[in-house]
Amino acid sequence: MIALEVTDVSASCCTPLVRDTLTAEAADELAHTIKALADPTRLRLLSIVAASDGGEACVCDLIEPVGLSQPTVSHHLKVLTEAGFLARTKRGTWAYYALVPGALDRVSQLFVAS
Amino acid sequence: MIALEVTDVSASCCTPLVRDTLTAEAADELAHTIKALADPTRLRLLSIVAASDGGEACVCDLIEPVGLSQPTVSHHLKVLTEAGFLARTKRGTWAYYALVPGALDRVSQLFVAS
Repeated sequence: MIALEVTDVSASCCTPLVRDTLTAEAADELAHTIKALADPTRLRLLSIVAASDGGEACVCDLIEPVGLSQPTVSHHLKVLTEAGFLARTKRGTWAYYALVPGALDRVSQLFVAS
Repeated sequence: MIALEVTDVSASCCTPLVRDTLTAEAADELAHTIKALADPTRLRLLSIVAASDGGEACVCDLIEPVGLSQPTVSHHLKVLTEAGFLARTKRGTWAYYALVPGALDRVSQLFVAS
């Protein structure tokens, strides 16, 4: 497994990639953020959380759809949380995850081509 | 180095990630595409090509700005080309690269959150 040092998406927000030439530092930050999204399980988790009732999902509801163990799912959720895409709330036994408002839109803005 | 099997961006185009729950197959394709962007050198190369006169850059003009060897730069350009982000034209000794119109916009659309 590759260790990810994920930078919060807000740090590299929001000038489109093609508007100004990226500095090496900005490119490093942005690549770390994008790495959090460059994984099929994490993309599915984001997608499932977004489609859940109330925009929030319990980790207990995410295990079966992706077909992985709870520790593996929790690892992917942690990467997405540290990258600023998901917010985590603990209630009782379980942790609940919701999309951070604006986080995916900021990534979208980075790839606007004009 | 990790072998990238990059899927053309057009294959996973263009339903926003959060609109429908991603299938495992769609998530695999999309993750491959995003992996092409999850690298600081490739992000800088895209940015430099986009900022070049006429929207096109010779590989000979890309080596110095990113500070890497020509084979390494050519490898990164190949990944971006195979992923559908850059178009390559050979003229004389050198290869020239330009952004594929719409390719980054398609990625942008994937992360629109609503």
